[in-house]
Amino acid sequence: MPPMGGDLSRLRQLNALTVIKTLRGAEAATLSALADRTGLSRPSTKEVIDELSAMGWVEEIPPASGTMGRPARRYRFRADGGHLMGLDIGAYHIRAALADLDGNVLAETRRPAHPDAPLEDRLAAIEQAAAACLGLSGLTMTDLWTVAVGTTGLVNAEGRVIMSASIPAWRDLDLEGLLGKMFPCRVLVENDSRLAALAETRRGVARDARDVVFLHIGRRMGTGLIIDGRLHRGFGAAAGEIVMLPEAGWRDGPEDLNNSAIVPEGLPPEDAAGFTLAAARDGDPTAQDAVARFADKLAIGTAAAVLLLDPEIVVLGGGFSRSADVLLPPLRSRLERVCLRMPKLSGSMLGDECVVLGAIDYAIEHLDQLFFAPDAPALRPPVRPATSSMGPNPA
Amino acid sequence: MPPMGGDLSRLRQLNALTVIKTLRGAEAATLSALADRTGLSRPSTKEVIDELSAMGWVEEIPPASGTMGRPARRYRFRADGGHLMGLDIGAYHIRAALADLDGNVLAETRRPAHPDAPLEDRLAAIEQAAAACLGLSGLTMTDLWTVAVGTTGLVNAEGRVIMSASIPAWRDLDLEGLLGKMFPCRVLVENDSRLAALAETRRGVARDARDVVFLHIGRRMGTGLIIDGRLHRGFGAAAGEIVMLPEAGWRDGPEDLNNSAIVPEGLPPEDAAGFTLAAARDGDPTAQDAVARFADKLAIGTAAAVLLLDPEIVVLGGGFSRSADVLLPPLRSRLERVCLRMPKLSGSMLGDECVVLGAIDYAIEHLDQLFFAPDAPALRPPVRPATSSMGPNPA
Repeated sequence: MPPMGGDLSRLRQLNALTVIKTLRGAEAATLSALADRTGLSRPSTKEVIDELSAMGWVEEIPPASGTMGRPARRYRFRADGGHLMGLDIGAYHIRAALADLDGNVLAETRRPAHPDAPLEDRLAAIEQAAAACLGLSGLTMTDLWTVAVGTTGLVNAEGRVIMSASIPAWRDLDLEGLLGKMFPCRVLVENDSRLAALAETRRGVARDARDVVFLHIGRRMGTGLIIDGRLHRGFGAAAGEIVMLPEAGWRDGPEDLNNSAIVPEGLPPEDAAGFTLAAARDGDPTAQDAVARFADKLAIGTAAAVLLLDPEIVVLGGGFSRSADVLLPPLRSRLERVCLRMPKLSGSMLGDECVVLGAIDYAIEHLDQLFFAPDAPALRPPVRPATSSMGPNPA
Repeated sequence: MPPMGGDLSRLRQLNALTVIKTLRGAEAATLSALADRTGLSRPSTKEVIDELSAMGWVEEIPPASGTMGRPARRYRFRADGGHLMGLDIGAYHIRAALADLDGNVLAETRRPAHPDAPLEDRLAAIEQAAAACLGLSGLTMTDLWTVAVGTTGLVNAEGRVIMSASIPAWRDLDLEGLLGKMFPCRVLVENDSRLAALAETRRGVARDARDVVFLHIGRRMGTGLIIDGRLHRGFGAAAGEIVMLPEAGWRDGPEDLNNSAIVPEGLPPEDAAGFTLAAARDGDPTAQDAVARFADKLAIGTAAAVLLLDPEIVVLGGGFSRSADVLLPPLRSRLERVCLRMPKLSGSMLGDECVVLGAIDYAIEHLDQLFFAPDAPALRPPVRPATSSMGPNPA
């Protein structure tokens, strides 16, 4: 705790943070509206807005044309003051998305990948995806403030992938360090299911929920947990791995859908589960049996999470979220048999973009921490943050 | 957020809270030591100590006799300024413990109960246990500042017992309201496994751990979760109920131990499991088979919790904690087969007192919130807090 003296500048900073928080991701607002929403006096609000405008965080926007009389001045957060990139590195794909400081997506790229591709090939593909995404917006690497990456596997707090069942090349790999050499800014690496869970609470069906179980269901099955409004990593960053519980049967869970008797020979393996789910929707009894077997397994792991955590909402996300209409009813009936309190059950609306959007939201959290947290250093103008001393980035 | 002006008194309060926090539950300290530990200047520390002494929260203690020269003055928190009571209301027992504001236990009582006792009888027994506990210290009901109660069942945020498998009379019962009529102070009611988990992090083997899975194992099986340093209740206060997962088999888990072939006829049912556990410790193969079957079930529910939450430590508490030496090795070997990261595994040292101690710690948290939280009203002298307007207490 700081000593009592000299803390008026500190209070001014806290007031500035309140104003910034009110403006982030919102419409432009007048001084009176800002004073209302923040509880600050109008003179204090004016003082803060002047300071933030001088720094470059806030700008006045021109009045709407055709307005009669003298309209009140309106101010907005300069979300275009910097750029972030989200990357989703899966076994079979690489996605990149470029966003402004409010998380609005400006450009996206996607390219296929092979699970067994050698490390150099995968890194080259990542660089291509990122460069193409920047090119779409006429930007370059040096415009990036932060890159956040979601990938499959156990990722520790330093961004090292301890193990990954889906990408053999990811094994005890300092991915944050490797990508730090590719980008001239801070790179953050986190487990993909966790980032997808974050996206659901920031912009998806779990928006503003404090306790969320996110089911990341597709070729692989995983979970991401939001507890008391925060991403839950656990003591050793190994939280969310209910897939390992033998009694839930999640490790080979999708095989029920991949190998159902109705899947035609020659169908690419990545389309098999979708074929079974579509046939079940159309009433095929063999497909419905396969869905029932899959739902049995899905329900065991989900019930364990619901009984332990009592979340407000369970979100079915990942590749199978397109078939939430087929999967949620049997999941619901099974959960109702054992759960003391039923959470809300929803299918994700973010589809295949859940991880890359979560990566962007994670990058925003990081920047908010650097610039706008109550315990951040004194407020400073919007300039790309120096790469952390933790990372090996040559910048 | 408050406006900028007039916040020096606010800063003085924050400084006072820092000093109080440093003194709580600790040895008496000199001004220099306090200034060191808090980071405040020595004049600020002196000012705060004078204010707290005038209020009655802090007192100077006499120098140790036989000290040479002029010893520095030392100060301590006046833990004896108020009194708390913890109650543990189980199906078969009622425990009461009286404590000072630092949670030091001053007196304890325990009496048996019957699961099927009518509500009035159980309430009368609670009042007897509490009165006897106060009598041991020469105190009366009016000396109590807060009473916290742990009981079996699903307890909602308002202290209503929604359901209880062990106490039939506890069914959709406003227990907080009923006990509020018994005590002339604020009464708080919470699930017993959660309070026991809290006690482990405040004074037990999980002291200071941020993520804890507490196994409450005995005649009944339950869990209490501490996540990121806080008691986890869940959205509808139904967290921790992995006992309901059929695949874990916890609901009849203890029957493996109660009904093993070696239990002599005529042994009271409450001693059967202990008999089997003791025989297993002594090498009886039939008893060891029963323990192995029980450990299989215990491990499924525990693995679900560990895989989902990745806790720092798992504590085996409750009645069976006396047999932790018998139960932990088979639990450990089963968890090692499936868990990605093994947490620390420990037996509780709090024994049968875990719930009543947790209730005391819960009452302390409540008082800290009233008196010493950063967002509490202005610092005030130690006087029994008024009963909350939420409770129906007639005071």
